[in-house]
Amino acid sequence: MNLHPYCEPIAMLLGTWRGEGRGFYPTISDFTYTEEVVFGHVGKPFLTYSQRTWDPATEAPMHAETGFWRCAEQGTLEVLLVHPFGLAEVSTGRVEGETVSVSTIATVPVPSAKVVSEVTRTLTVGSGVLTYEISMAAVGEPLQAHLEGRLEKIG
Amino acid sequence: MNLHPYCEPIAMLLGTWRGEGRGFYPTISDFTYTEEVVFGHVGKPFLTYSQRTWDPATEAPMHAETGFWRCAEQGTLEVLLVHPFGLAEVSTGRVEGETVSVSTIATVPVPSAKVVSEVTRTLTVGSGVLTYEISMAAVGEPLQAHLEGRLEKIG
Repeated sequence: MNLHPYCEPIAMLLGTWRGEGRGFYPTISDFTYTEEVVFGHVGKPFLTYSQRTWDPATEAPMHAETGFWRCAEQGTLEVLLVHPFGLAEVSTGRVEGETVSVSTIATVPVPSAKVVSEVTRTLTVGSGVLTYEISMAAVGEPLQAHLEGRLEKIG
Repeated sequence: MNLHPYCEPIAMLLGTWRGEGRGFYPTISDFTYTEEVVFGHVGKPFLTYSQRTWDPATEAPMHAETGFWRCAEQGTLEVLLVHPFGLAEVSTGRVEGETVSVSTIATVPVPSAKVVSEVTRTLTVGSGVLTYEISMAAVGEPLQAHLEGRLEKIG
């Protein structure tokens, strides 16, 4: 099945990526994780997206995300994804060369979840490596760096 | 990996389900589809969820959904899922015996998507069959029946 032409600008995300990341935030202890990210497609103008992380030592599951990266003709993006801790993120952004940047236009927590008011994501792909930085404004803290990782293409 | 005890009330959803459904709404022509739904878990207090539909005749992909069904101790649910047409749904609900019912507390469209203002879902599982009814308020129409399906457990 051919990739939808609207998604050509983010074709470099397609595949399975695995590597290591680390997290930090004023309200929690620093942590590290192993991560796998899968971007796929079904010929329509979006990529499917799933992500999971696990403890490098015990292999216990840590985080997960799933959603869709919608592609518009002019290289703009609309991203919808959800977290099992109880958050939906809806973002818009752009792709410019090897770099994809999106920022939330809405974050919706479930009633029992902590409030995350803003998330920004920057992904860069080059030479078979995907690096990313995620910033977050949450629980009263201003927008600041929260997660970073480096993944290699494994499939 | 053992199912988290909070998810025991919806354990009957776990597995892979396949069958047929049909859709209808005042603003569109009736349609039918073949559907596969997968509920999984990783031992945490939520189920993973993915769904896809395709044209029964041509097998062309139609719709898809992905997300998480969070389980609280007292049989209440919080559901987060996203649609590739550009919608995030955040719902709360309950499980009572064989029936699971959830209603949106928030729907977030991306800027280019049509507005869906409310969605309700009722799933019933019995004798290896999952039936569901989904109602929707969208594009100015009041909440009304939109989708129904009957799926058999295949895995």
